[in-house]
Amino acid sequence: MINKLVSKIKETGAPIVAGLDPMLSYIPEQILTKAFSEYGETLEGAAEAIWQFNREIVDNICDLIPAVKPQIAMYEQFGVAGLKAFERTVKYCKEKDLVVIGDVKRGDIGSTSAAYAAAHLGKVTVGANRISAFDEDFATVNPYLGSDGVKPFIKVCQEEKKGIFVLVKTSNPSSGEFQDRLIDGRPLYEHVGEKVAEWGAEHMGDSYSYVGAVVGATYPEMGKILRKIMPKAYILVPGYGAQGGKGADLVHFFNEDGLGAIVNSSRGIIAAWQQEKYGKFGAEHFGEASRAAVLDMKADIAQALQGR
Amino acid sequence: MINKLVSKIKETGAPIVAGLDPMLSYIPEQILTKAFSEYGETLEGAAEAIWQFNREIVDNICDLIPAVKPQIAMYEQFGVAGLKAFERTVKYCKEKDLVVIGDVKRGDIGSTSAAYAAAHLGKVTVGANRISAFDEDFATVNPYLGSDGVKPFIKVCQEEKKGIFVLVKTSNPSSGEFQDRLIDGRPLYEHVGEKVAEWGAEHMGDSYSYVGAVVGATYPEMGKILRKIMPKAYILVPGYGAQGGKGADLVHFFNEDGLGAIVNSSRGIIAAWQQEKYGKFGAEHFGEASRAAVLDMKADIAQALQGR
Repeated sequence: MINKLVSKIKETGAPIVAGLDPMLSYIPEQILTKAFSEYGETLEGAAEAIWQFNREIVDNICDLIPAVKPQIAMYEQFGVAGLKAFERTVKYCKEKDLVVIGDVKRGDIGSTSAAYAAAHLGKVTVGANRISAFDEDFATVNPYLGSDGVKPFIKVCQEEKKGIFVLVKTSNPSSGEFQDRLIDGRPLYEHVGEKVAEWGAEHMGDSYSYVGAVVGATYPEMGKILRKIMPKAYILVPGYGAQGGKGADLVHFFNEDGLGAIVNSSRGIIAAWQQEKYGKFGAEHFGEASRAAVLDMKADIAQALQGR
Repeated sequence: MINKLVSKIKETGAPIVAGLDPMLSYIPEQILTKAFSEYGETLEGAAEAIWQFNREIVDNICDLIPAVKPQIAMYEQFGVAGLKAFERTVKYCKEKDLVVIGDVKRGDIGSTSAAYAAAHLGKVTVGANRISAFDEDFATVNPYLGSDGVKPFIKVCQEEKKGIFVLVKTSNPSSGEFQDRLIDGRPLYEHVGEKVAEWGAEHMGDSYSYVGAVVGATYPEMGKILRKIMPKAYILVPGYGAQGGKGADLVHFFNEDGLGAIVNSSRGIIAAWQQEKYGKFGAEHFGEASRAAVLDMKADIAQALQGR
């Protein structure tokens, strides 16, 4: 799957992943009204609105980008109905040949991580059947529990040709509270980065590893160092746009070959219609506003990479 | 909710939480056969089997213990159907007046943690309605992202009178890989423990905080130190039984008042019928085997606490 991701990035020229993290406040009135009239102001109504919203956006951007990253929390808050919308979104995006990165940030003791890995990347055995549940292509993984929380995911990646992105340095303001603390003179995130390189070395695709890393766009200097520590890890870079990361900040996350990183934007793409800049599209054409935002982001990143 | 947990622990004399972490291999043949005959060997069939299994166990132990801890991964692996069984289990246990600890180990950047907190402890706004999704009483939280990944949970705890247990030192063999690394001469888990105490100080129940901690039974010496660092935090202690923790190891997790810790056992309780010790009950009476295992565990812990 890492090979597919790399080849789709080359094909589209867009190292971009669209974060499908729908909040009800991003969704135009016409979609909410229709969903609520069918299902009421219920969890089912919210889930229907999310699904319709996602579909319209995906239809408008799927030819431009290699991948999407639905953040499962935004679905989970609507309970079982929300998770059904998550499942439906994953399936639809895969039908559109998009690589789907499940932003689930799971991680637990070994046997439990194995169950999460089965849930999101693999299959479960039920009687004589082997069945997929959510079946994303990649999942994000939390490293706090160490190797035996991560390795069950890697095992499933091998079996199913899928991949993971391990949290190394997250994009949020307080990420430094633990991640930046010095251990033997070097911050924790570097130690985690080294482990990612170690885990990934044994699980290589053609040029990059099945084991990638999450490093926030909001910390470009740290990205520079981590890029060197994990040369074969694809870096998933959140924090562009709404969280404050800019195109120029991103160059350090890429390798010399222009590969090695994929930049996420969520609100900046899916709620583009609410920005003044894309206001001309109006609520009716919110999908086209998302398309315009993707094109602008693509140009911003291309310019930054050319300028280095 | 921490007050309810403490008073139920006093009432039952059992600082025990039963981990409802069903694997299909724990479920007696008669339940599997019935579920599969109704729903096929499908995710729905597996979910039905889990639900029937849980219900029987809960019916047999609910008068003996204060709380249950369903591990959501074991449900999530069966997709939407599995999560429906999770929802049903949470609801049923609450009807039986059990405190429900959702072992979800969630944690993300602020806005995303807020969605997880809504999903598991709080409510979401849909139109004019405020609706609960999974609605556990407590949730476990991963601290790797720092304060702004944890505080949204605390905010919901305040609003809803619920609680969290933050992962401090986990029970698995490789937990030391990052958690034990020395920062300013002290292991990372102590620093996390200090944060737990700090977060918790502002959010107190009558005698304990709404912010608790997870510390594995497999590391009793560390439990001793963490008990002192976080005197007001309830400690959720996994790793008893199947993972190797023994009654005598547990004393250090408790305060002098005999409170302050609640010990989890999962397989040891729910799959008791498969142990030689409880073999006399047979597969038909697996719920009674679970009851006997709870009584034995209660005696083991009581003896250890008396002996100190």
